[in-house]
Amino acid sequence: MNEHVDPAHSSDLPTPALVIDGDVFDRNLAVMAATHPGPALRPHVKAHKCTSIAAAQASMGHLRFTCATPREVIGMAAAGLGHDLLLANETVDAVRLRAMAGLDNPVTVAVDSDSTLDAAVAAGIERVLIDVNVGLPRCGVAPDAAGRLADLARSAGLEVRGVMGYEGHLMMVTDRSEQAERVEAAMALLRRAHADVGGHIVSAGGTGTFDLHERTGVNEVQAGSYALMDTHYGRLGLPFEQAVFVLGTVISVGDRYAVADVGLKALGMDHGDPDLVMDDGSPRSVWFCSDEHITFSIDGGSTGGGAPVVGDRVRVVPAHVDPTMAMHEVAWVVRDDRVTDRWPIDLRGW
Amino acid sequence: MNEHVDPAHSSDLPTPALVIDGDVFDRNLAVMAATHPGPALRPHVKAHKCTSIAAAQASMGHLRFTCATPREVIGMAAAGLGHDLLLANETVDAVRLRAMAGLDNPVTVAVDSDSTLDAAVAAGIERVLIDVNVGLPRCGVAPDAAGRLADLARSAGLEVRGVMGYEGHLMMVTDRSEQAERVEAAMALLRRAHADVGGHIVSAGGTGTFDLHERTGVNEVQAGSYALMDTHYGRLGLPFEQAVFVLGTVISVGDRYAVADVGLKALGMDHGDPDLVMDDGSPRSVWFCSDEHITFSIDGGSTGGGAPVVGDRVRVVPAHVDPTMAMHEVAWVVRDDRVTDRWPIDLRGW
Repeated sequence: MNEHVDPAHSSDLPTPALVIDGDVFDRNLAVMAATHPGPALRPHVKAHKCTSIAAAQASMGHLRFTCATPREVIGMAAAGLGHDLLLANETVDAVRLRAMAGLDNPVTVAVDSDSTLDAAVAAGIERVLIDVNVGLPRCGVAPDAAGRLADLARSAGLEVRGVMGYEGHLMMVTDRSEQAERVEAAMALLRRAHADVGGHIVSAGGTGTFDLHERTGVNEVQAGSYALMDTHYGRLGLPFEQAVFVLGTVISVGDRYAVADVGLKALGMDHGDPDLVMDDGSPRSVWFCSDEHITFSIDGGSTGGGAPVVGDRVRVVPAHVDPTMAMHEVAWVVRDDRVTDRWPIDLRGW
Repeated sequence: MNEHVDPAHSSDLPTPALVIDGDVFDRNLAVMAATHPGPALRPHVKAHKCTSIAAAQASMGHLRFTCATPREVIGMAAAGLGHDLLLANETVDAVRLRAMAGLDNPVTVAVDSDSTLDAAVAAGIERVLIDVNVGLPRCGVAPDAAGRLADLARSAGLEVRGVMGYEGHLMMVTDRSEQAERVEAAMALLRRAHADVGGHIVSAGGTGTFDLHERTGVNEVQAGSYALMDTHYGRLGLPFEQAVFVLGTVISVGDRYAVADVGLKALGMDHGDPDLVMDDGSPRSVWFCSDEHITFSIDGGSTGGGAPVVGDRVRVVPAHVDPTMAMHEVAWVVRDDRVTDRWPIDLRGW
């Protein structure tokens, strides 16, 4: 904890401000570490793009990390968190592959085709994971072609550490028994591929399926959003609480609506509008977001709460945490209304 | 033109890369300057957040600019573009208001309430514009209360330069005669307020209504998107061409779809999915965007074009240009496939 953070109180923060509730954040990390201790969780840094948050995850015992971009990999290594980094994504960028190959600790990169394997080999990458398609129409080799790709990698002198297969299409299945069944079916594909590929790692999962891998054969879960959460994941009834919001200031009040300074340039909007609560905790209906504004109903409804006035603070809760984090330079950590830390969002970009 | 840009060709750019077609950009600026020469256009820098683009607009004769955030104002002044800056937005942030008040050239800020006026006065701001609500449920004082606010500002010793009123709710009306009628009705409210407020400036408009102010009394148009455009504005049949896209690389190819490295962290998503064309110009259907991926159909349909292979380049055209620009550190200017300039997106944040 940094005792010299300026400003000292959340009421002093310039807005829009990305704010993390430090106590909630700590609880989320503890819940996850109890379920998936140490290497059973490979936290995904794409959810926060922040080495300070990654360091907190490492202090809980998770020393292996998942990254989505070369810059995340390189930034994590520069921050001393490069013990075992996985680029869980394909790239054929020779410059960036060489930069990752040149790091002190060997990086593991995902490959799903001859082309991505060739690029990794040419750049001097030494370790790969075979990325297997388990149903999400995105990257990943077909399960029955995974073994051939692993053989090709080994014949090129690479270490094949195992398989990964992200069941992203199943994160938001709201019926949990249906979700568990479908996750098991997806992971059966991954196990089939793993039988052909070999290696120790079977990596999959996310926040929405974090507790459905007890019998799937997966030995590391790639969850990331659990640490901070968003309204999208919040609907699933998971044991993680909302730990991040964008603090705003009311700048204009009309007859039926008010306007605060948290616009769509401060929010990931691909999952739709955010939620909004006044500083007293009473919610308000969001009408719409513009570049630098959020228009919301002044009516607190049955929850009570009066009409806002200019200068009031609001908390805007993002619908999607990952892109929201990527839009801010810094996150402010608040505990008991005191600003205890300033965490740069230092892994942005590519 | 910078003769020493590295990389030299667009094929060398690391992806995702924000790319501006320099020739199209020049044409867009010329079309607008022909319609609204010099001070008749007050370009809105929120659309690009880039002082290099603002400098190009200034070179076309537009020396007065519109900003949405204090950082845009301060950054424009630092870049030598601070001749006449308007913060077309409300703020009660004392620190940022004082920073703007301390600039060499007086800044004009929008006010729409006693509270925002008081904050401006307390910070030493010398010039204001009365922000009038003309129908968009966002900032702006009611038209019949504008005169009182102007009197209050003058009694506090401020110069009241006139009025502004953004008809943002009318930008996307696709029937142009209906749009013209509704713009005229909105501007009638602004004229009524102006009659009570006084001052020389009547500021309004955007790219979607840029040519509908001949007889509205508006003497400066605040358009910004016209310079770069997006698919949303592209549907209106305006005389501006698409000048910006996000260049991506195909990283994975499946049976029916391919995946490129341009995800929702590289795109403003509030207006929905982007469009995608292969490097040969043939379009593909976008399936969905994830954080760092875009999944699209490999089928070129009647336009021809074969299936992509890993390493192919794609052009992803944003649905909303403003937040897209804010997600990138730099834009690359390309002319005849040569990279001629590297323009930092240097006005990001708040």
